[in-house]
Amino acid sequence: MTPVITLTTDFGDAGPFVAVMKAVIRRHAPEARIADLNHRVAPCQPAEAGFWLARCYRYFPAGSVHVAVVDPGVGTARAIVSGETDGHVFLAPDNGILPMIGDMQLRTLSSAWLAQQNWPVPSFTFHGRDIFAPLAAALLTGRIVPADIGPQTATPVSAAAPPPTKSNGRITGQVVAIDTWGNLISNIDVAMIEGLHVPRVRIGPVELPIRQTYGTATAGALLALVNSFGVIEIARREGSAAATLGLAHGAAVVVTAS
Amino acid sequence: MTPVITLTTDFGDAGPFVAVMKAVIRRHAPEARIADLNHRVAPCQPAEAGFWLARCYRYFPAGSVHVAVVDPGVGTARAIVSGETDGHVFLAPDNGILPMIGDMQLRTLSSAWLAQQNWPVPSFTFHGRDIFAPLAAALLTGRIVPADIGPQTATPVSAAAPPPTKSNGRITGQVVAIDTWGNLISNIDVAMIEGLHVPRVRIGPVELPIRQTYGTATAGALLALVNSFGVIEIARREGSAAATLGLAHGAAVVVTAS
Amino acid sequence: MTPVITLTTDFGDAGPFVAVMKAVIRRHAPEARIADLNHRVAPCQPAEAGFWLARCYRYFPAGSVHVAVVDPGVGTARAIVSGETDGHVFLAPDNGILPMIGDMQLRTLSSAWLAQQNWPVPSFTFHGRDIFAPLAAALLTGRIVPADIGPQTATPVSAAAPPPTKSNGRITGQVVAIDTWGNLISNIDVAMIEGLHVPRVRIGPVELPIRQTYGTATAGALLALVNSFGVIEIARREGSAAATLGLAHGAAVVVTAS
Repeated sequence: MTPVITLTTDFGDAGPFVAVMKAVIRRHAPEARIADLNHRVAPCQPAEAGFWLARCYRYFPAGSVHVAVVDPGVGTARAIVSGETDGHVFLAPDNGILPMIGDMQLRTLSSAWLAQQNWPVPSFTFHGRDIFAPLAAALLTGRIVPADIGPQTATPVSAAAPPPTKSNGRITGQVVAIDTWGNLISNIDVAMIEGLHVPRVRIGPVELPIRQTYGTATAGALLALVNSFGVIEIARREGSAAATLGLAHGAAVVVTAS
Repeated sequence: MTPVITLTTDFGDAGPFVAVMKAVIRRHAPEARIADLNHRVAPCQPAEAGFWLARCYRYFPAGSVHVAVVDPGVGTARAIVSGETDGHVFLAPDNGILPMIGDMQLRTLSSAWLAQQNWPVPSFTFHGRDIFAPLAAALLTGRIVPADIGPQTATPVSAAAPPPTKSNGRITGQVVAIDTWGNLISNIDVAMIEGLHVPRVRIGPVELPIRQTYGTATAGALLALVNSFGVIEIARREGSAAATLGLAHGAAVVVTAS
Repeated sequence: MTPVITLTTDFGDAGPFVAVMKAVIRRHAPEARIADLNHRVAPCQPAEAGFWLARCYRYFPAGSVHVAVVDPGVGTARAIVSGETDGHVFLAPDNGILPMIGDMQLRTLSSAWLAQQNWPVPSFTFHGRDIFAPLAAALLTGRIVPADIGPQTATPVSAAAPPPTKSNGRITGQVVAIDTWGNLISNIDVAMIEGLHVPRVRIGPVELPIRQTYGTATAGALLALVNSFGVIEIARREGSAAATLGLAHGAAVVVTAS
């Protein structure tokens, strides 16, 4: 299977930002396959980008390059980092996205290396087009590997959302993503709740048992489940759990035994 | 022309759901062309999915596979069905989507057949990725035909929106889709109103003549027209008919002679 | 590099409109590459379509065909025009989109030429599918050039947004686009403010200095900057300038020296 470049951004769909980023990729790698992983990451939520990338990259062929541009610090002194794990290459601002994916040695893009490329001078506000796009193309085609772009990152920014903790049989995580339907998706992996006797999920003012799927709740009811990406999710059948509970990214999710 | 897989879902664009479904299709059919027909079907509105599929599939090459995943019952006992008509193959939950497209013998996916495939165990909540995607790939490449996946469907769920009725020169249908601009799109085909003397369209509290196009109404005015897919539509020039009238899917639309 | 067809519309993503337009393009040019430049142009804002096209077309290979369908007058007597500049071909309704891109001789699609094509009779409301799509395919493949489709356009509709004016060191432009984050994007090119001593940007009730990037403002603060497409933009760090100021397309933007 042909490796691809995946794009994860908070660009939304108003404006030509995604299209222009792809056009620049194709200028440097005309035959690149590009997959839009998610352009609706909540603005300024690197944790959401990191979460989805961690849970999705394995669906793409080894050799793929995964680019995340959720980058409120664009144009400031924040670094750009790249790393490789499991045969996949990742590229993102140094804001805690990549540490959510797994252990990997990061490299910091050096301004010296950047200056040697024959690329237009980057703008201050659209590094997706000016830096990430040509870099991703070079990584996909194998012209470079992450080690080429700069030194090892001494102290990368830590994970944008800390991993869940377990203490006295109580697992505490947080909401890291919200989907189209308003489902609140936590970072608590099903493996962490194994062995709990009839686990219950607390979020905001409610405590919910874990069901198998949406259709087993009554219409309008809140429910918790292990979703299709292997984490605890709080949903509302035929409605929005986020709107109903008034909760968003960062809300605490606690799982205990009954 | 190369046949394609078209996708019609209510996944929206927040999250990686469409991207992951496509990645799985490509794992099973690396060269598949995939067309995003519509990912904004209103949640829990199989009638909208069926309506658009019925009106759009002929724009794609014969041999194409059309997948609809509007599936509030995912993970429950609801069946998955497939059928073929007019040289096109269709795949959807058994919730009234496919009967809106035309007469075709449906086949019900059997758990025995599914168990023989070398696919990961399906999740309870994302059959788009776990069942529809590999099935569509197998149908597109011709490795299987609908008859392979299981027995004839004895009593498929009937059409998610009943066909319009005609009685005493009065045609009664319903709103089956709402588009980006808030136009209310009915299931009343232009053929049904042929012969009516100066037809008028009633919806909610208003009665409207039929105009040729949006620009012939004054700005802000409601109008009815025969839209580009051959059905009666209620629009508001430079505005949203749905918001103005406070109407949505299922609202009655009645056409009579003047 | 392979030329492409780019699409700029106000179709949004609810409904199959983009998909069907692409399907018709592929019927006429099976191997066409199609790029979604922007389907979220504000409804009835040809100025936004023209602005983005002008600022983006050069990212695509020469020989590309750029189609803009922001067309409130569809089905009325409004003309369809095409032109060529800088090795790129453009196609749009005659509503002031193309004059925003640059000087080019426009040609008006003649009904006689259209009638000679073997295309289905156009609908009154979806010329994107019925006229623009097959025309773009014919232009991309070189079967026709703009001069083939009709006579020179004697008096094209003038630019949908007039160019900014400069008088007594005061540059007056307007908001021509709003992006996903609510940034207000003006048509004032950075070249127009060169030489101004410490330029300041006035919009609505506020006057703002020009900063280099979003991250240099405090959270929630309004700022002005030269954006990555070379024009003055008014933003709010981690918020929406459009919502905060209650301003939209057409709002005046004035730049003066301090």
